[in-house]
Amino acid sequence: MEIPPVVIDRLPLYARALSKLEVGGRDVVSSQELGTLLGVTPAQIRKDLSYFGRFGKQGRGYNVRKLLDELQRILGLDRQWSMALVGVGKLGRAILGYGGFAPQGFRIVEAFDASPKRIGERINNLTVKDVADLERTLLKKPVEVGIVAVPAEIAQDIIDALVKCGVRAILNYAPIAARVPPGIQIKRIEPVLALQSMTYYMKNARRAAASARS
Amino acid sequence: MEIPPVVIDRLPLYARALSKLEVGGRDVVSSQELGTLLGVTPAQIRKDLSYFGRFGKQGRGYNVRKLLDELQRILGLDRQWSMALVGVGKLGRAILGYGGFAPQGFRIVEAFDASPKRIGERINNLTVKDVADLERTLLKKPVEVGIVAVPAEIAQDIIDALVKCGVRAILNYAPIAARVPPGIQIKRIEPVLALQSMTYYMKNARRAAASARS
Repeated sequence: MEIPPVVIDRLPLYARALSKLEVGGRDVVSSQELGTLLGVTPAQIRKDLSYFGRFGKQGRGYNVRKLLDELQRILGLDRQWSMALVGVGKLGRAILGYGGFAPQGFRIVEAFDASPKRIGERINNLTVKDVADLERTLLKKPVEVGIVAVPAEIAQDIIDALVKCGVRAILNYAPIAARVPPGIQIKRIEPVLALQSMTYYMKNARRAAASARS
Repeated sequence: MEIPPVVIDRLPLYARALSKLEVGGRDVVSSQELGTLLGVTPAQIRKDLSYFGRFGKQGRGYNVRKLLDELQRILGLDRQWSMALVGVGKLGRAILGYGGFAPQGFRIVEAFDASPKRIGERINNLTVKDVADLERTLLKKPVEVGIVAVPAEIAQDIIDALVKCGVRAILNYAPIAARVPPGIQIKRIEPVLALQSMTYYMKNARRAAASARS
């Protein structure tokens, strides 16, 4: 059965909330409480989890540890994933310095850049390599995820090279609508572009609101 | 006519590429060249733009300045948008320091936090205000966009407060599936959650690839 992508997108939220509850020493949680923590209705939570089998008992809530284990297994979060970062400009540096990846099992193991100023530089225990050596490096020592933080003009070429080296997923910070072959995952992470598509609706809503007020 | 959201999501990319071409002194661009710059087929570009009227002449390409003006008008990018940031922790600081918003017309005009250590602190010409004063401040001086960079547990309350103050769009960095009323835009920007939903597919693809190889 094909699980709807929107369900898959919510599961990491459930895992994160359960993980916090577990750290806090909780054994059992109701779908009601989990829903309140996450801004999701209890019915939605029960429906989402039903895709993966039976969890919890009617009226007794979920066993926090068991449900968390199961979600981590389903999502592939019970293991480490290795990542290569391409582009060590201002944005790339912020990504290298971001503390949120490693605790969740995502490790940046390579960093590449094209600028002679940056090649050889040591940042957070990584030595920045020449992007010209990207394929040679990653074909020898493959990574699973590519993080693209290069200018738009070269982003597609970098993505193509990463895919050629066996990367299975790409986190794309470049402002392009990148193409990847079927079976390769890609997500765009770019706050300004996200804002700029929301303003289309805001602008039209403003007009509607203004005429409703007048 | 309802424009598909995926088309609206691509328009900012077109505007960004056109803006670069204009800065570079270009007058005319073909859909072919624009497509190459953006990783979109020329046919897709022509189809996307056709929702908004007739642009360019067959075989003569687009007038860069005219198409850019038109897209900026359509998207509401020909004006300034004011934003309030809530949460001035490590992530909030990175957002305040991010140089990408202002050049595109998005200005952070207020920053709020709950920590006494941070309230009153001056960062990038903004004085951090007490989140307890959020409603009073924003009801008096409304902003259009809210940026939420607070812990998951309080994110929905903050979002509700922002909506109550008239915010029309929210950029949500908190790991929750937030609820907003109809007509309010919201986008989630969180790299780890993006990775964690991709690993579901990667894990299954890995298994499929492994069994195909064996």
